Amino acid sequence: MTTTKQTIYYTLTDEAPSLATCSLLPIVRTFTAAADIDVKISDISLAGRILSAFPERLTEDQKVEDGLSFLGELTQDPDANIIKLPNISASIPQLRACIAELQSQGYDIPSYPEVAHGDEEKALQVRYGKLLGSAVNPVLREGNSDRRAPAAVKAFVRKFPHSMGKWSKASRTHADYMRGGDFFSSEQSVTVDKETDVRIEFVAKDGKVTVKKELQLEQGEIIDGMFMSCKALREFFEETLNDAKESGVMWSLHVKATMMKVSHPIVFGHAVTVFYKDLFEKHGELFKELEVNPNNGLGSVYDKISSLPRSQREEIEEDIQACYATRPEMAMVDSVKGISNLHVPSDVIVDASMPAMIRSSGQMWGPDGKQKDTKAVMPESTYSRIYQEMINFCKTNGAFDPTTMGTVPNVGLMAKKAEEYGSHDKTFEMTEDGTMRIVDAAGTVLTQHEVEKGDIWRACQTKDEPVRDWVKLAVTRARQSDTPAIFWLDPERAHDMELAKKVETYLQDHDTTGLDIRIMSYDEAIRLSMERQIRGKDTISVTGNVLRDYLTDLFPIMELGTSAKMLSIVPMLKGGGMYETGAGGSAPKHVQQVEEENHLRWDSLGEFMALAVSLEDMGIKKNNPRATVLSKTLDQATGKLLENNKSPSRKTGELDNRGSHFYLGLYWAQAVAAQTEDKELANLFAPLAKTLADNEDTIVGELSAVQGRPAELDGYYHAKRETVKRVMRPSATLNKVLASAHQ
Amino acid sequence: MTTTKQTIYYTLTDEAPSLATCSLLPIVRTFTAAADIDVKISDISLAGRILSAFPERLTEDQKVEDGLSFLGELTQDPDANIIKLPNISASIPQLRACIAELQSQGYDIPSYPEVAHGDEEKALQVRYGKLLGSAVNPVLREGNSDRRAPAAVKAFVRKFPHSMGKWSKASRTHADYMRGGDFFSSEQSVTVDKETDVRIEFVAKDGKVTVKKELQLEQGEIIDGMFMSCKALREFFEETLNDAKESGVMWSLHVKATMMKVSHPIVFGHAVTVFYKDLFEKHGELFKELEVNPNNGLGSVYDKISSLPRSQREEIEEDIQACYATRPEMAMVDSVKGISNLHVPSDVIVDASMPAMIRSSGQMWGPDGKQKDTKAVMPESTYSRIYQEMINFCKTNGAFDPTTMGTVPNVGLMAKKAEEYGSHDKTFEMTEDGTMRIVDAAGTVLTQHEVEKGDIWRACQTKDEPVRDWVKLAVTRARQSDTPAIFWLDPERAHDMELAKKVETYLQDHDTTGLDIRIMSYDEAIRLSMERQIRGKDTISVTGNVLRDYLTDLFPIMELGTSAKMLSIVPMLKGGGMYETGAGGSAPKHVQQVEEENHLRWDSLGEFMALAVSLEDMGIKKNNPRATVLSKTLDQATGKLLENNKSPSRKTGELDNRGSHFYLGLYWAQAVAAQTEDKELANLFAPLAKTLADNEDTIVGELSAVQGRPAELDGYYHAKRETVKRVMRPSATLNKVLASAHQ
Repeated sequence: MTTTKQTIYYTLTDEAPSLATCSLLPIVRTFTAAADIDVKISDISLAGRILSAFPERLTEDQKVEDGLSFLGELTQDPDANIIKLPNISASIPQLRACIAELQSQGYDIPSYPEVAHGDEEKALQVRYGKLLGSAVNPVLREGNSDRRAPAAVKAFVRKFPHSMGKWSKASRTHADYMRGGDFFSSEQSVTVDKETDVRIEFVAKDGKVTVKKELQLEQGEIIDGMFMSCKALREFFEETLNDAKESGVMWSLHVKATMMKVSHPIVFGHAVTVFYKDLFEKHGELFKELEVNPNNGLGSVYDKISSLPRSQREEIEEDIQACYATRPEMAMVDSVKGISNLHVPSDVIVDASMPAMIRSSGQMWGPDGKQKDTKAVMPESTYSRIYQEMINFCKTNGAFDPTTMGTVPNVGLMAKKAEEYGSHDKTFEMTEDGTMRIVDAAGTVLTQHEVEKGDIWRACQTKDEPVRDWVKLAVTRARQSDTPAIFWLDPERAHDMELAKKVETYLQDHDTTGLDIRIMSYDEAIRLSMERQIRGKDTISVTGNVLRDYLTDLFPIMELGTSAKMLSIVPMLKGGGMYETGAGGSAPKHVQQVEEENHLRWDSLGEFMALAVSLEDMGIKKNNPRATVLSKTLDQATGKLLENNKSPSRKTGELDNRGSHFYLGLYWAQAVAAQTEDKELANLFAPLAKTLADNEDTIVGELSAVQGRPAELDGYYHAKRETVKRVMRPSATLNKVLASAHQ
Repeated sequence: MTTTKQTIYYTLTDEAPSLATCSLLPIVRTFTAAADIDVKISDISLAGRILSAFPERLTEDQKVEDGLSFLGELTQDPDANIIKLPNISASIPQLRACIAELQSQGYDIPSYPEVAHGDEEKALQVRYGKLLGSAVNPVLREGNSDRRAPAAVKAFVRKFPHSMGKWSKASRTHADYMRGGDFFSSEQSVTVDKETDVRIEFVAKDGKVTVKKELQLEQGEIIDGMFMSCKALREFFEETLNDAKESGVMWSLHVKATMMKVSHPIVFGHAVTVFYKDLFEKHGELFKELEVNPNNGLGSVYDKISSLPRSQREEIEEDIQACYATRPEMAMVDSVKGISNLHVPSDVIVDASMPAMIRSSGQMWGPDGKQKDTKAVMPESTYSRIYQEMINFCKTNGAFDPTTMGTVPNVGLMAKKAEEYGSHDKTFEMTEDGTMRIVDAAGTVLTQHEVEKGDIWRACQTKDEPVRDWVKLAVTRARQSDTPAIFWLDPERAHDMELAKKVETYLQDHDTTGLDIRIMSYDEAIRLSMERQIRGKDTISVTGNVLRDYLTDLFPIMELGTSAKMLSIVPMLKGGGMYETGAGGSAPKHVQQVEEENHLRWDSLGEFMALAVSLEDMGIKKNNPRATVLSKTLDQATGKLLENNKSPSRKTGELDNRGSHFYLGLYWAQAVAAQTEDKELANLFAPLAKTLADNEDTIVGELSAVQGRPAELDGYYHAKRETVKRVMRPSATLNKVLASAHQ
């Protein structure tokens, strides 16, 4: 594989980010061209992925490159430089809608067979299956994670802080988690000293052995086995419900059913059947017939009973209501519509819901539409303790103050599907009592657990190479930012102790003179980080994959009000770099606003920041000093944009995404013109800076004039490029200025 | 000064402990005699101290030795071995009662002049002044403090745990403290590198300098200056009251007006005048005339208005009631009698009240006689944070479990009036705005604070020799008990940072190989200690004087239900040892029960334990192996006594202090007879063991037979020895057995 050596690959994704790209890229290219850098589009949109999956059904004209495969290969290239925007993690309804749109555009793509009849349809299901869900990240994230709040964003927040709900010292809110019987307490962990094949086996009570899965482990790979007791989990739920009822606090459940897509829906389902115990006891038989799946939430009950005769349905609905009389108040997702915390498993996602709650005075919304203190139930104790620590901290010290608080960047172990986040295909719900064990090729039992029917057993893998790279990244970040770094490793957790051995070994590969690098339990680490934070001090969190995910929402939401403003870098194992932008998805609601009112509120701040580090990296690796100048000046421009409040407004008629791009271009050009490192470059951009400034009113006027009326995009998943271009670049003046730049 | 080299000095004190001594000593001497150890009485009772203060007014027969002066000198003797029982810290009413009793017994002692007229009475007041308050401890505590829970007591508690109130995870209880303007935030600290004289000066706004105090500092002595802002304190009280009112939790105040006898009554007084703001505003002039002193609590108001005409008094009483409508509920000392937290400054003492609250589910008693969550107000943030830490810990992990928890012994810096606890004579309430400073002989300003009228300024001293000894004691205890030791030193506290330098230096004087000795902030230290504790692990707390005092109540009350069961050793700077027994005073209520029902519920457990370490020390220092055997066997006897539940009952008719002493003697004799280290000694005690066992029923019967009727002691402060002996040794059989032992 060869790549042009001075190329930034910019992903074309879906929905709002893809619209924004159409406006932003022409501006960006005006700058990068001056440094001989090409910015190439790589299409990883859902539509693009579908089309590239069926080349044999398309005409030559219709065929598209498989952008994801291309980028997947590129991750192995030391020169890779990728800017990755948010994309759709497709659900089945989204997949079907996209297929229908493509078909209507004349693409001969087969329909998705929801129930597969025959081998052909089964094969088709498998083929489409690869496009579903989080299909992109596992391919591209061939490195660990470096996430931080850029200085410009911190400066902006210090000036324009987001709201933070006051904490009462007498708050009743708390986290509640299992004290035994969970994954944490059963975890066993082994590092294999040489390459080996292992079998995950179930041994039934009668001695019969079933191989559940076979794995190939690399030398130095860590493998964990653990389980959650169904009985202990259900007892725990019952206790928390009784305790909440007794003490008068609201009850809420926080899991991550989207990411932990095998284990957490089951956990969620138990919460549903324990909360609505009387309902499920009374109607158990009927629900079985109706194929009610509690793992899909109470919504599944409402869904399945909708076809029943009215009287029968009403009886069940009354029985649902009756449950509320014996149970504590439950946190609501939408109290007006009566959508509770147990309605759908994907509505309350721990890494988003807990920071939101902590930011809102430790409260959630009750059935009466009022904010209330709550018991936040997070069964698995491994990670939930960090939330209790922060809750206690806020009770003691009050809400965090964004204008003075320090920052907690993260260096996260992520590469090669590390830890729990790669465990989906190794997670099993037990169908009978017996023993789960992991056995290596020599027959040695590596882990072993007595399990009961209903227990959730899982194995997790952590390869050695990513760990080594993660330690290196931590040292590098500590050195570059002159900031203490803490490895969050719990001495009471089997897996972490295996990891700690590696950390201690690999730290010796680096010069750590003058650095403050420590290993601490999660409790100690978060506490120290917070103590430092309220004194304005920064602390790098160096964590495993799950904490990476949780902390890069938790701290940013306190510090910045959102995690979307974080800089997210994936330094690839092979030397390349990926720069992720934003968080929180691809914003379908924003597209709707464009279609109805031609106003795009998408904030490209993430793209600005990602581009700056992408350029910075290119400057260093390719010895391209102009890239370095462009990087620095882009950061200055972003800072000025934030300071002057030229981010997109949510309101139609005010500055939107396109206007914000104009100001970025203006400030960037001015910054390049003003810098003295590269006089020639300054001279090159001085005219552009002047022209843009002179035409500010005209351009902003043209951009705002189009707003307020519907905009036709000619497609949603696969909108026509020309139409999108017309909509997203409506300022003739700006287009002309860009076209004639540097001439 | 010469002392008999094989002597234990046993203090004769007051009230219940002195009665117990009369019964216990004959038994003890039966054992110590066999090791050639003399147990001598040294009278430090209030009556004894008064008599020894006026030798010129007494006949030769009446004259007594000055026991306290004798022991004070003895503390400088490397061979000193003192067992110190609780004594009366005399208030003025107690002093007057004691004088009256002595006068009635024919002692020509002058009365105490409450208001002094003329030089003679003034001189008398000064003479009596030395006997008031905590007059004994400063003389005897010529060393640092080593306090721990004896193994036998821990074993007993694991078998018979005290009650622990359940903690709700949703508890609203919390500690509240100042975030600025307190002693903590203003503390300045300096170590003088050579002997010097310093002046504490006030510089008025007009430049006039007043010397408030002159001090001589030793080489290496630490001197601190700090102040509490009156304005900040009053604002803080107002805020806590509003916050409690708003959030609906009860309000409570926790200070230590007894020990911090200058600063804390003033702090308390501000709480009173802020809580009853409307009352003091309305009746300010009248209260001034009446000499109402809010520092003495609301009780002072009730006291002073009692002489007013009824209508006027009733108006004020109504105005008091009106205050309660605008204020939060207040914690009560006695809800039946309407005695609130603000009634008297000595009723709620932080080091006792906070552990009691934490042990009682984090609740105190409300005006309605119900237990409730409370805001625990402790203005000075220096130490109050440890309570918040424990509260958060209990909310998170539930109440401590005495049957499984580890122990936190204390090594406390105490010698030579270290730190705040020696600051009374260097504490000043400002009467005008200006500057407080400490200036050395060369004119160098060591500390300087801008102060306002009403602010409380204080200086604290910490001498070098005690610090050096304290570090040594910490290392010794860590080594002897093979337990990690944590120096609690706050990096954000000026004084602690001076201390930390010394600790780091003096640690190098010792072999710390293999020891786990750390320096941590209070928050970190208590958190780690608690985390270890709930996992059954022990951690030595090495602290300054105030934390010594607080922690030796806090942890014992969780671990043992009381601090009275702690072993308290003062290894003297000069090499001797003092063994303190019990805590919680000399129990006047116990004496009352004896007078009415001839039942003494005083528990001599503290004396048993102190005697065991006293003997252990003698065994080592004097190379007296029999003392060692007696020490070991006494510990065994104490363990058996606890296990067989032969401690005194509170109920008349059941086993009391005297019966408990009998069982100690029995078990001790049996243990000596059973040991094999010293066969001769075993043989010597075998007959005693047999005789006591044979006569168990008779002796216990005789001891119990006297109960239920009044007992006349012929005096309270200075009861007749012969009468006390008759009352406290009523078993003719036991007396006969002891008299004829070893013959």
